Amino acid sequence: MTQTPGPTAARRGRPRSAAVDRAVIDTVLRLLTEGTSFADLSMENVARQAGVGKATVYRRWPGKDALLLDVLAAVEAPPAEPAGHSLREDLIASIEAIRHRTLAKQENALLRNMLLHLHSSPELWQRYYETAIVPRRRTLARLLERGVAEGELRPEIAEDLELAMDMVAGPVLYRATIRPDLLQDDTLAERIVDWFLQGARPQDGKTPGPRYA
Amino acid sequence: MTQTPGPTAARRGRPRSAAVDRAVIDTVLRLLTEGTSFADLSMENVARQAGVGKATVYRRWPGKDALLLDVLAAVEAPPAEPAGHSLREDLIASIEAIRHRTLAKQENALLRNMLLHLHSSPELWQRYYETAIVPRRRTLARLLERGVAEGELRPEIAEDLELAMDMVAGPVLYRATIRPDLLQDDTLAERIVDWFLQGARPQDGKTPGPRYA
Repeated sequence: MTQTPGPTAARRGRPRSAAVDRAVIDTVLRLLTEGTSFADLSMENVARQAGVGKATVYRRWPGKDALLLDVLAAVEAPPAEPAGHSLREDLIASIEAIRHRTLAKQENALLRNMLLHLHSSPELWQRYYETAIVPRRRTLARLLERGVAEGELRPEIAEDLELAMDMVAGPVLYRATIRPDLLQDDTLAERIVDWFLQGARPQDGKTPGPRYA
Repeated sequence: MTQTPGPTAARRGRPRSAAVDRAVIDTVLRLLTEGTSFADLSMENVARQAGVGKATVYRRWPGKDALLLDVLAAVEAPPAEPAGHSLREDLIASIEAIRHRTLAKQENALLRNMLLHLHSSPELWQRYYETAIVPRRRTLARLLERGVAEGELRPEIAEDLELAMDMVAGPVLYRATIRPDLLQDDTLAERIVDWFLQGARPQDGKTPGPRYA
């Protein structure tokens, strides 16, 4: 479980808790940017450098990994809600957001190293998955479910939403892993979604409306 | 460029070169399994532990990274040629092979750590991509090209084979990255390929033959 430190701290009546959180998170980011490795990062050092007590840091985060997860959350943009223009456009926006996040991670050595570190521990990855990836998957799942409900997607898609999400989100992340140079392509999201829809639309002769042309 | 040490060494007239290569590679695997980190692994130590001269190791591998790439190549199975029964079956076998390799990497901490290490350096990853991934991609590309040539796939697929490969190979590797627990599914490859083919077959009313039903 990841602690959400702000509210807890506030409930205990400590003012300036948001400022303390921010100071600690900024300190971690600074230390990592300056070259401190994850192994060398200690709660003690972070507290000292942030100018707060060690106990204050430990009250907010049970350990280094919980702190790192909050640092990542602070760096990553929250998922955007779909604009709701059309299924195709919403899907493209969703895949385009994945492409942009992935490009940002490639260009930012700090982000990249933090993610590699998360992958080195199944427990840590699981927590990152729950706090950072699940909300995005949920947005995508809702989009696909609505598509099925409105008859724009085959009904079977609702029976295995996990696979449907992997089919549409997988190509960008796969490309990011094995051919990062091919990610700099502004038409990628559109082409993936159009391909996906070609296999995902009802196959019973029903043709999609003009806005999905 | 990765050196392929065997043939070069043989040409220079050194007998037992394959045995020396094997001894060095086995030594690296043993040291890593015993907990030596990549950073602590040195050519000197590998040579000493393998019972060969340092110069012998350096003649075969210019450095630690070249040696690591050969260690990975020795551990990974070479790509299998498609059986040629049908496009659908060959694609399923190809995706199933990716799933098995991915599961093997998850279960083998050594393999997993080696791959994380490769990802930490763009140059090293590029070399791994060329030596280990390109041959597999080429097999998959030939499969798709043949499908287009025989009219089983839409002609546009040949125009962007990279995207077509990402569409069919991406879901497994994406799932391996974010939801490794969902990879233990024997029907996954088949479901991905059937979904892929639904969008990849010619859309001009031509129906696929019974063997692709």
